[in-house]
Amino acid sequence: MTPHALEAALRAVGAERYHNLHPFHRLLHDGGLTRGQVAAWALNRSHYQAMIPVKDATLLARLPTPELRRIWRQRIVDHDGEAEGDGGFARWRKLTASFGFADADVEAGEGVLPATKFAVQAYVRFVAERSLLEAIASSLTEMFSPAIIAERVSGMLANYPFVTPETLAYFDKRPAQASRDVDFALDYVCAHAVTAAQQQAAIAALRFKCDVLWAQLDALHFAYVEPGLPPPGAWRPEAL
Amino acid sequence: MTPHALEAALRAVGAERYHNLHPFHRLLHDGGLTRGQVAAWALNRSHYQAMIPVKDATLLARLPTPELRRIWRQRIVDHDGEAEGDGGFARWRKLTASFGFADADVEAGEGVLPATKFAVQAYVRFVAERSLLEAIASSLTEMFSPAIIAERVSGMLANYPFVTPETLAYFDKRPAQASRDVDFALDYVCAHAVTAAQQQAAIAALRFKCDVLWAQLDALHFAYVEPGLPPPGAWRPEAL
Repeated sequence: MTPHALEAALRAVGAERYHNLHPFHRLLHDGGLTRGQVAAWALNRSHYQAMIPVKDATLLARLPTPELRRIWRQRIVDHDGEAEGDGGFARWRKLTASFGFADADVEAGEGVLPATKFAVQAYVRFVAERSLLEAIASSLTEMFSPAIIAERVSGMLANYPFVTPETLAYFDKRPAQASRDVDFALDYVCAHAVTAAQQQAAIAALRFKCDVLWAQLDALHFAYVEPGLPPPGAWRPEAL
Repeated sequence: MTPHALEAALRAVGAERYHNLHPFHRLLHDGGLTRGQVAAWALNRSHYQAMIPVKDATLLARLPTPELRRIWRQRIVDHDGEAEGDGGFARWRKLTASFGFADADVEAGEGVLPATKFAVQAYVRFVAERSLLEAIASSLTEMFSPAIIAERVSGMLANYPFVTPETLAYFDKRPAQASRDVDFALDYVCAHAVTAAQQQAAIAALRFKCDVLWAQLDALHFAYVEPGLPPPGAWRPEAL
């Protein structure tokens, strides 16, 4: 494949498997969820958010040059911020705090579904263990995130009185950050995936990452929507 | 806690969280599943079965003495056998073969739910990274397995014409093996978990392992029973 055809193949993975196609996402942005169900989403997604800088630090540790590390380092700055209360995860916690979750409980992953933790851990291990090409390719779900964020934010603001622009502050900065991240990662993948085997590995890495996101919505849907069976030890909406 | 009280606390974890309490298990042994749903269970459970000797080899590599390693080694022999076609995983594949799954596909994890893979990987990582006490304690779900096996085998034979004593051959040897494994592991845990922190860690390890088993049935139930939404790339019962 040419770099252009590879990019098209990567985008096709998103068109088929990105989690904007999951029924839980549709319920979330169409207003089909209760406050408890949205809280469950926010709580579980917190664990993913909390681990993103861990994932990026894991990848950072494998990058061979100062140039590459400086570029990737910015992702960690985006999430962890420059000071207490700054950064993406702090902004994310405005949403969980609005449901009454204590920051310390959110940071500890209290009540998070085991399946969420397993999926997120699989992502960190993937980035630790696979080739650098695959590790970087797995980040490319960010190609598809500006669209889902736009849909999610406008849908949630329109449909849930308990959601405000302030509690969704996390999402304000993400599209620009994601777009900058994608510019680098997509160039890297298209430049380094030259053999057919490398190109297939890059596509498989992006599929894997779509699985990680999809599995998190599966677990939420199962536990909190249908059939609605939170596993032992998981947070329960009655606690709201 | 005395060793006796610790054993009681460990058994209480099973009474509250072992996967015999999961609705999918009840459907499975009560005859409430279609052939396709039982096939999905067999296929996904295969991935867990395939990884058990990997988990045990990971633990084996951390044991400090020949005495301990000789004892733990037997678990790997049980699963991998002495020769081609022998051992627990070969016996397990009689069941998947009866649904038409090719051994090579089963070994490759073809069509297995991502959530199954994530849960199983979390178990292997737990055994690799936690204290030896926690790693050994996490195996203690075998305390509860003879009961679930008896219920599963009799229920499946009574309720599914496509299940036979031969396809369930895997389970014949497991209760005796599990009982021998538990004798060692329970003695080890009760002897080595002496401080309150160690005892709590051992209990938490067993809870974690119950989460690993439970999450696998959650994923099966979600994908194949209710609401019945297999994720992109997963095996579909229509393929039977």
